[in-house]
Amino acid sequence: MVAIPFLKMHGLGNDFVVIDLRHVPVVMTEDLARRIADRHRGVGCDQVITIEPPRSAGATAVMGIRNPDGSEAGACGNATRCVAHLLMSENSTEQCVVETIAGLLPSQRAANGLVTVDMGPARFDWHQVPLSEARDTLHVGLSEGALHDPVAVSMGNPHAVFFVDDADAVPLTTDGPRIEHHPLFPARTNVEAVQVLGRDRLRMRVWERGAGITSACGSGACAVMAAAVKRGHVDNKAEIILDGGSLWMEWRPADGHVLMTGPATTVFQGVLDASLWSDLSGVIRDGVLHG
Amino acid sequence: MVAIPFLKMHGLGNDFVVIDLRHVPVVMTEDLARRIADRHRGVGCDQVITIEPPRSAGATAVMGIRNPDGSEAGACGNATRCVAHLLMSENSTEQCVVETIAGLLPSQRAANGLVTVDMGPARFDWHQVPLSEARDTLHVGLSEGALHDPVAVSMGNPHAVFFVDDADAVPLTTDGPRIEHHPLFPARTNVEAVQVLGRDRLRMRVWERGAGITSACGSGACAVMAAAVKRGHVDNKAEIILDGGSLWMEWRPADGHVLMTGPATTVFQGVLDASLWSDLSGVIRDGVLHG
Repeated sequence: MVAIPFLKMHGLGNDFVVIDLRHVPVVMTEDLARRIADRHRGVGCDQVITIEPPRSAGATAVMGIRNPDGSEAGACGNATRCVAHLLMSENSTEQCVVETIAGLLPSQRAANGLVTVDMGPARFDWHQVPLSEARDTLHVGLSEGALHDPVAVSMGNPHAVFFVDDADAVPLTTDGPRIEHHPLFPARTNVEAVQVLGRDRLRMRVWERGAGITSACGSGACAVMAAAVKRGHVDNKAEIILDGGSLWMEWRPADGHVLMTGPATTVFQGVLDASLWSDLSGVIRDGVLHG
Repeated sequence: MVAIPFLKMHGLGNDFVVIDLRHVPVVMTEDLARRIADRHRGVGCDQVITIEPPRSAGATAVMGIRNPDGSEAGACGNATRCVAHLLMSENSTEQCVVETIAGLLPSQRAANGLVTVDMGPARFDWHQVPLSEARDTLHVGLSEGALHDPVAVSMGNPHAVFFVDDADAVPLTTDGPRIEHHPLFPARTNVEAVQVLGRDRLRMRVWERGAGITSACGSGACAVMAAAVKRGHVDNKAEIILDGGSLWMEWRPADGHVLMTGPATTVFQGVLDASLWSDLSGVIRDGVLHG
């Protein structure tokens, strides 16, 4: 048996297969990630996450992210909480730094077993979102169905944040893809529908670029927090209620960073029999593992 | 940690979490099955399968089947192959008898690691299917879109088998649910679109009652084999090509039983942390397991 140990985790229902490449001699390829992510013939997940040795000074470990199609992703807030939780537990510390291709993400243990991640700065320059033409990103002046005049913001990926009277009434399955593919967003965009419940409470639903409606999007929650602060709807701390549960957000005025606090849940540990996929070559490093 | 060991298996992509209740002191409840079957917050599967001590003379073990909504199911051909494979491996034998609420299913090892299950008799009495009125089950004379004049047959569950010129051209997502809910089938029905490729080869697609299009349905393949024999399209052995792969079928004239041969694949072994679900009560028998 060619054994690949892994953990299955989730953050608000956004679920991950986590493989620690510091200890498992496997090379993560597009093909292997696709097979692992298959919900019927593999393990099944939204993203395959790898933990690798750090590359930069100050980093605890590198987090790699693969989509179900095998492609690499730049950021995933829910996965960052899960990896930070594992790294802090293994080192018996209350803080760590998760290195991603989008940068270093300092993380720490919060109350009740929750994890706080510094998700970096929200960016409001129109060419950084990116938009296809110069616009005021706080009032983009775009309309589609029930959605009007979004805030455009980048958290490493693009977001169009719409404030609405009733988030649950928005027909996101029809309006979402139209905004995602609107020519104003040359790299397409994530779409958030947000209802202000109070100075420290927001209800949000999300249409994720390339994935559709999901139960939770960490970078989306960060984008929503930054947009709500800029529009004056909330003070610098707020609970955001997503379909999958709540995240507790903080906007740090000093550097414009967004801090996200939420759960990281381990569901099960598993050992994958990769000899199933004997047509995959180059996956096992340094010879074959025997389980 | 409250540890529940399990195996993740599949037959042609029809996937199962298998829990051996002979060794794991857990009570399978509707609630627990639903949580395990959840693809984001649980393990994820089409059915949760339990192995339990035999109740009848001659049986090797009982197989229990739970749907993702927690309800009990009577039959699953793909799961029967998986359970038979496990029972034969554990006993180092080449045959076993799987006991289900639908009866005893004798099974044996075939070539190439495949497993053969005696799926019992195909029944063509109209009241056994059931139909809502007396009809010739070999020519039901029902039409819907591209589908005409099915064979109605019971393999413990109802099937409407339609022979067509091009199975892949049938708009099963629209025609399937209309047949499923047709008043002629008071218990609703599974719907099969079948193309005859030769005297020993059939191509089939399936709309499963309550589940929609699936990659493979074992009882559906049995129904198709029996219908094709009765209509004179095939001799008593045939390969049936489903979306998820092939099954090799045999019709036994002596007793009208259908024998199904196909793969049973183990993907990974896992240990579930059931302390996650501390609100579930009565699940752990005889005290708490510690992993």
